[in-house]
Amino acid sequence: MEEASATCEVRVQLGDRDYPIRIGSGLLSRPESYDAVPRGGVAVVVTNTSVAPLYASSVARAVSARHVRVLRVELPDGEEHKNWLTLNTIFDALLTNGCDRKTVLYALGGGVVGDMTGFAAACYMRGVPFVQVPTTLLAQVDSSVGGKTAINHPLGKNMIGAFYQPQLVVADLDVLDTLPERELSAGLAEVIKYGPIADAAFLAWIEDNLDALLARDKAALAHAVKRSCEIKAWVVGQDERESGLRAILNFGHTFGHAIEAGLGYGAWLHGEAVGCGMVMASELSAQLGLMPASFVDRMHRVIERAKLPVQGPATLSGDRYLELMRVDKKAEDGEIRFVVIESLGQAGMRPASDELVARVIEAHSAR
Amino acid sequence: MEEASATCEVRVQLGDRDYPIRIGSGLLSRPESYDAVPRGGVAVVVTNTSVAPLYASSVARAVSARHVRVLRVELPDGEEHKNWLTLNTIFDALLTNGCDRKTVLYALGGGVVGDMTGFAAACYMRGVPFVQVPTTLLAQVDSSVGGKTAINHPLGKNMIGAFYQPQLVVADLDVLDTLPERELSAGLAEVIKYGPIADAAFLAWIEDNLDALLARDKAALAHAVKRSCEIKAWVVGQDERESGLRAILNFGHTFGHAIEAGLGYGAWLHGEAVGCGMVMASELSAQLGLMPASFVDRMHRVIERAKLPVQGPATLSGDRYLELMRVDKKAEDGEIRFVVIESLGQAGMRPASDELVARVIEAHSAR
Repeated sequence: MEEASATCEVRVQLGDRDYPIRIGSGLLSRPESYDAVPRGGVAVVVTNTSVAPLYASSVARAVSARHVRVLRVELPDGEEHKNWLTLNTIFDALLTNGCDRKTVLYALGGGVVGDMTGFAAACYMRGVPFVQVPTTLLAQVDSSVGGKTAINHPLGKNMIGAFYQPQLVVADLDVLDTLPERELSAGLAEVIKYGPIADAAFLAWIEDNLDALLARDKAALAHAVKRSCEIKAWVVGQDERESGLRAILNFGHTFGHAIEAGLGYGAWLHGEAVGCGMVMASELSAQLGLMPASFVDRMHRVIERAKLPVQGPATLSGDRYLELMRVDKKAEDGEIRFVVIESLGQAGMRPASDELVARVIEAHSAR
Repeated sequence: MEEASATCEVRVQLGDRDYPIRIGSGLLSRPESYDAVPRGGVAVVVTNTSVAPLYASSVARAVSARHVRVLRVELPDGEEHKNWLTLNTIFDALLTNGCDRKTVLYALGGGVVGDMTGFAAACYMRGVPFVQVPTTLLAQVDSSVGGKTAINHPLGKNMIGAFYQPQLVVADLDVLDTLPERELSAGLAEVIKYGPIADAAFLAWIEDNLDALLARDKAALAHAVKRSCEIKAWVVGQDERESGLRAILNFGHTFGHAIEAGLGYGAWLHGEAVGCGMVMASELSAQLGLMPASFVDRMHRVIERAKLPVQGPATLSGDRYLELMRVDKKAEDGEIRFVVIESLGQAGMRPASDELVARVIEAHSAR
């Protein structure tokens, strides 16, 4: 029971929508991990075809005492399925099983499962409770925390969604043991992100511990997840609906979203696109005179060491990026605003000319 | 300018989501009616093919000074189109026109347009502002107020939606002049509803003024809309998300929804189904010993005088009603709870046996 004692909790402070993030080994299969969840009603474990055989039974068993019945819904795996059609399979299952307003949805999977299950919970009968049980590093450190839920539209990523907070996040570090290497790296992209935007010391810690993280050292992962969640919870607690500060969490994402949309969702993992996007956003920060060139090198190095792409795809032109960025949610009145680093651990928002953005993309693309 | 002086305002008090309902003649085409709406951004007037030729240009003109551009989206007319496919035409229009987070949606139409536009506003980029400009009596007294938005699912009405408040409701009484007679009656069903559930004196007023209302007397309509909105605003202000009190607004709706779903959406108007449903719910209140038989007669009479159906359709059996009621949102753990009248002007929730419910339906159905 050594793992149990190592469990820690981070709170997302949002008044009447306050909730805990629990982080530790072996949490997923322990009934007491879910004691913050409303009792009664039907439980629906929503997962995907890759995660289901690994963990669905454990979660179903752990929550069964709290609920009158436990159902399962399996979604196809991958960002390309994060659309209305897949979302509707959740609604179909809920309605054909007569699920009422006391139903609790458990999102067991990565960011795609979490985003879709959260959005389904936000909309079903105008809102039922849900729980995040993230099974990827990326979901544990980013997407499962903060209540952003959405599906994609053919014309843009995450365009249809809701701000809707879970009752609880259960981040079980043991699930990271089975994570494919590519997904571990994708998650590290979001971990790395928190350094330059909010905590210079954390960036240095990541650089010192990157080999341990890649080797899945449990203590290193525990610290990375905890510190990431603390920073995200702090930001979300101040700006739940992204009217200002929260936008800094999108460092590298404006470039990254353009890569994802331009290649077709699913070609690159979200974290891979963000990794490359952070190199470009760091370059932009340097070109705007905010940061020295050495900062770009430093970001390039840590992202590359994390086994993430540091060059944009050869097939995407600068013009195509700009076109895609203009339909991104972050654009306002057609003006694209970028998250830039103003000093190490401090981010801000800046516009940039099309010429400069194209030059930055060119400098960091495979040609 | 006599109409302008007759304008009145009811406030929906919801803290930071507080908003006014403006009621009066000629409001729709006056720019000052919209002064509570955020400036800038693109305006999108969402309407349907029946309403567009009557009022879309007036609204577009009235709001044009507040916005950089005014777009229009026309939806097909009718409850049978209140689904994902139609909703998606709004998203398509918003995205192909590069609409950002400052976009304001104007819902110009009846309950279907309001419900779908409100839900589109709730979901687009996780939430953009919207305004209700209801063009039916039913929408003015009920659906445009209180922030319930939704679309239908083949397995149930309003199953997918959100609680999402508008910035403002503009109820122009002049639009009621062009309303088809059947729709006027449908609206009166919801007006009548407010009497037995919340205000005995208002029920007596409706009985005294029903001929004037049917003749579209402007002063009578103004009072009916104002008092209805006051009662609805009071209820919603206390229980926005329907955890208790708000359910009383569904008097007659559990029976009514079953009629609508059983016949296929669009066969009967919502207000028609609610009219008949209130006769049944009044009978149930009497059968449960809460109200005298004379109350059922009284409700039967006023509903019939309003030119609403007082008998359920011949083709729907009691068993079919019960089956449909069990998938309705109001059911919990498979138990159906009915809004009943406990004393005139006071409603409550009660379960009832299947046998009793079937008997009530039988007594008020065409066979």
